[in-house]
Amino acid sequence: MPDDLATPHTVTTGPIAGSRKCHSAPEDFPDIRVPFREIALDPSAREEPLRVYDTSGPYTDPEVAIDLGQGLPRLREGWIAARGFAEAEARSVKPEDNGFAEGRHLVSPCPAAHAVRVGGAVQRVTQLEYARAGLITQEMRFVAHRENLGRARAVPGASARRADGEDFGAAIPDFITPDFVRAEIAAGRAIIPANINHPELEPVIIGRNFLVKVNANIGNSAVTSSVAEEVEKLVWATRWGADTVMDLSTGRNIHNIRGWILRNAAVPIGTVPIYQALEKVGGEPEKLSWEVFRDTLIEQAEQGVDYFTIHAGVRLHHVPLTAGRVTGIVSRGGSIMARWCLAHHRESFLYEHFADICQIMRRYDVSFSLGDGLRPGSIADANDAAQFAELETLGELTKIAWVHGCQVMIEGPGHVPMHKIRVNVEKQLRDCGEAPFYTLGPLTTDIAAGYDHITSAIGAAMIGWFGTAMLCYVTPKEHLGLPDRDDVKTGVITYRIAAHAADLAKGHPAARLRDDAVSRARFEFRWEDQFNLSLDPDTARAFHDATLPKEAHKTAHFCSMCGPKFCSMRISQDLRADAERLAGLAEKSQEFRARGHSLYLPEEG
Amino acid sequence: MPDDLATPHTVTTGPIAGSRKCHSAPEDFPDIRVPFREIALDPSAREEPLRVYDTSGPYTDPEVAIDLGQGLPRLREGWIAARGFAEAEARSVKPEDNGFAEGRHLVSPCPAAHAVRVGGAVQRVTQLEYARAGLITQEMRFVAHRENLGRARAVPGASARRADGEDFGAAIPDFITPDFVRAEIAAGRAIIPANINHPELEPVIIGRNFLVKVNANIGNSAVTSSVAEEVEKLVWATRWGADTVMDLSTGRNIHNIRGWILRNAAVPIGTVPIYQALEKVGGEPEKLSWEVFRDTLIEQAEQGVDYFTIHAGVRLHHVPLTAGRVTGIVSRGGSIMARWCLAHHRESFLYEHFADICQIMRRYDVSFSLGDGLRPGSIADANDAAQFAELETLGELTKIAWVHGCQVMIEGPGHVPMHKIRVNVEKQLRDCGEAPFYTLGPLTTDIAAGYDHITSAIGAAMIGWFGTAMLCYVTPKEHLGLPDRDDVKTGVITYRIAAHAADLAKGHPAARLRDDAVSRARFEFRWEDQFNLSLDPDTARAFHDATLPKEAHKTAHFCSMCGPKFCSMRISQDLRADAERLAGLAEKSQEFRARGHSLYLPEEG
Repeated sequence: MPDDLATPHTVTTGPIAGSRKCHSAPEDFPDIRVPFREIALDPSAREEPLRVYDTSGPYTDPEVAIDLGQGLPRLREGWIAARGFAEAEARSVKPEDNGFAEGRHLVSPCPAAHAVRVGGAVQRVTQLEYARAGLITQEMRFVAHRENLGRARAVPGASARRADGEDFGAAIPDFITPDFVRAEIAAGRAIIPANINHPELEPVIIGRNFLVKVNANIGNSAVTSSVAEEVEKLVWATRWGADTVMDLSTGRNIHNIRGWILRNAAVPIGTVPIYQALEKVGGEPEKLSWEVFRDTLIEQAEQGVDYFTIHAGVRLHHVPLTAGRVTGIVSRGGSIMARWCLAHHRESFLYEHFADICQIMRRYDVSFSLGDGLRPGSIADANDAAQFAELETLGELTKIAWVHGCQVMIEGPGHVPMHKIRVNVEKQLRDCGEAPFYTLGPLTTDIAAGYDHITSAIGAAMIGWFGTAMLCYVTPKEHLGLPDRDDVKTGVITYRIAAHAADLAKGHPAARLRDDAVSRARFEFRWEDQFNLSLDPDTARAFHDATLPKEAHKTAHFCSMCGPKFCSMRISQDLRADAERLAGLAEKSQEFRARGHSLYLPEEG
Repeated sequence: MPDDLATPHTVTTGPIAGSRKCHSAPEDFPDIRVPFREIALDPSAREEPLRVYDTSGPYTDPEVAIDLGQGLPRLREGWIAARGFAEAEARSVKPEDNGFAEGRHLVSPCPAAHAVRVGGAVQRVTQLEYARAGLITQEMRFVAHRENLGRARAVPGASARRADGEDFGAAIPDFITPDFVRAEIAAGRAIIPANINHPELEPVIIGRNFLVKVNANIGNSAVTSSVAEEVEKLVWATRWGADTVMDLSTGRNIHNIRGWILRNAAVPIGTVPIYQALEKVGGEPEKLSWEVFRDTLIEQAEQGVDYFTIHAGVRLHHVPLTAGRVTGIVSRGGSIMARWCLAHHRESFLYEHFADICQIMRRYDVSFSLGDGLRPGSIADANDAAQFAELETLGELTKIAWVHGCQVMIEGPGHVPMHKIRVNVEKQLRDCGEAPFYTLGPLTTDIAAGYDHITSAIGAAMIGWFGTAMLCYVTPKEHLGLPDRDDVKTGVITYRIAAHAADLAKGHPAARLRDDAVSRARFEFRWEDQFNLSLDPDTARAFHDATLPKEAHKTAHFCSMCGPKFCSMRISQDLRADAERLAGLAEKSQEFRARGHSLYLPEEG
């Protein structure tokens, strides 16, 4: 690995075009600074700036000096410190943690100081344990305020109207109280993935009665890798709206890369610990053991990973159910565990040691993301016996994890045609006690390699509508290669679209505020406002300028699609200018209809 | 206009990567040569080449010499000639037809010889008239054979299985007979837009019991234009899968550009005649008249346009219903007609002369695409009183057009959130007597300018599933600028995805053949097959090569996402190699479950 890739120096910083970072606090808790982004509008709009949810972390705040070696400000430090956790005797980093990388091949560790905490056996640690005890944590207050955006404030023209929608049994309140958050967590219907060793985190809630969330996967691989690239992908993904990021790195330097990511992540970080465990045993699934896995869990929990994908649902007797599949097992974790089960002809150590795993994860408040090792990899395999048998097992495991006080979400879909999507959500809610669903896509057809962000956005929007709490993005490179920075952005924006379309359709009371702001800007030819209010102002502006680059055209009351003569919006505005006349017409229209005026009869043809 | 843009010389020709043009004929009608595209597979697959539907016309056939000045081969010439239509005394081209362009500003007309035909008053002309008379036309046989792809032939591994699906009342037969086509047309449930002056056409059927179709819009505008670009966009759009193309040109040279397009179009061409009529009156809607419009209809019908968007549903008393909208009237045609109605305070000439319009269109078999002039331009305006009042009027007009023997489809959506989509289809089917629905998008959110191909693909897939017969594409430039060649391709591929996802979900009996072929190729690491079977082989290949460019990797049994150690497909294949053991396990699995084996109880947490 060349030196310039080994240590990240710079990442993308600065505000998103046309907006500025701002913070706001719940009443009574002025020290809880919740980040938002405020989009300024043209004075002609006579509207307040539009405030939007902000996942971008301190990177978009010009007042924060970013130093990757120091890591981000530790927002939660005081909250966690007040809980009185012991400082753990941290596990020592072993050569195999970084794949025995040495010398110039070894990525240097992130120098940020990091004292490792661990919860005690008789101490409340997880958000679930606090919630059950009736206690509202700072994290709960933080997410309540964050989710309340657009609900608390009066917004001109839209605030009074309760959004319509079809929520399929979700129960989204008009206003989110901290106690509502607590109750949802206590019921297992929502989680706040928040490792006590990740103080840099800006907490996020995942549950179907909250805004639909988006996860972006990053990670180097054995074939291609660079630390600097991965940290930049994290920053880049969250800049465009990723609510959580999974680090799926494999290969060498996996421990140290993860350190750089965690110390610089304002979003929850998820991992799949079996990947690193497999590296430690030389890449041969048969050699995996509970001991190696356990050690890896502790290693990663101490670093601060917020959620672990655990493929404990792949049971020995499920494996033969995949034999008739067109695409077999397509989950890496699933195939690794299936291989192990067959090689040893026994239940996997993940399943047999599930209670032990719970006990470890509880002590750091690492949330479970129960992995769907048998998810379908093709339309042909959707909703088959293997997939659903595993989901039922995930339901059993959910209840066990809850007994242990762990927070849980459930992974799902993959490739599923539209007519088979809804039953996935219904079955998941039923079998897994309404634990939050976290789905990949689903891709609604197999025939569009290179466009699977789109095949899957269709499925993701629908499954989000039906009740999935978090959507795992798919990039244009799916099935073909590793996503680069551009692919990450395309994937994130595409999934923000899916998540927002779902929020709108569910009837989220504040979702439409932004749509309406864009539509007003469009109708009033406020081009800059239209760009800035969009998910990706830079692309919107560039596309506009490609046809009509002149500055003057940004204030023109027409655009390149129709030109000045044909502009429907302009004609429509002209019509409206004659407002009084229209009002008169509305009355006439009623009369007209009342008189039963209708078409004259056609001649015989 | 510079000379090199004034006359098109070359367009994209040659086969799509990895495939070849082929033709096949119905038994008993060997002269009906229906085009298909055959994708060759690696010999290791031991599968027949996969034959797919082909919209690309003679341009992808190396055996056809393309000469834009001569126009395409006239596939339908003999069929039409046999019907004994009179040769019309063609309307002379007037200076205003080309916006008074002169000298070097005048695009020269397409030199292809074009004798103009017109049907008589007591003669059968339209496909609907033939269908009602119980007569099966060559066009009907052509589309029956075309739609039967994958149903007639035995295809290894997939042919016997009836696809599952939810069809929402569609009635898609296992096998398409010519008489089924005739019956669907006779019932008004399907149309074959096929002007008797467009002999170059390869007929296409549009109806919800057939494959979901995709339309691409092209057209110059007053702001930017080039003939060569427009003809290339036509060829390019159909290369990637546009079933029909609408020429939405405005500005000068509109007549001659249309001539070039029609003589070189193998797909049905649609237009919005009011655009040209408006040009003829200097761009002032108030000056429009029935006489100018009538003359324009005849002008375009004689050239061979296959379907006209007619905004006759915008009635005077509908206009006030748009007064409270966030985005007013966003359809160009709709705003033009609304303006006319208000200026003259009377019903539009389109509505008052609807029977006259029918009589003109019938004589050439120009199909109606009844325009949705009041479609919603924002989430806020979706499904409002204006939109639905117009839809009801379109229902009345449909029945009148049918009396005149005209084929009809109905335009719809725009911006509609997911939960409001289905009612659009239900209402359209009910109000318009099941005439085919043809919808723009719908866009499911307003907040993603620059990505509206995606916001709308979500809605398009869903509305196609619910019963829409043709989806009008949206490109990434929507709301921002005119689509260029790349945007056209992105729009078409995106909408092919939506249409195919809809076919799969409806349970089309042959839709899954291609998905399954891709999935088998994927599982067997036949990289080249995976690329070639995809909608866009070039992009799939380029994306793969971006990470793993070496030729050797195209036969590698892994890819860049996981690398060799982590490849789930490979592990899964290794598992399958042990097939007999798996078979044994399947039995054991049954026993295992029968014995009620379950999880050991967790320790108390």
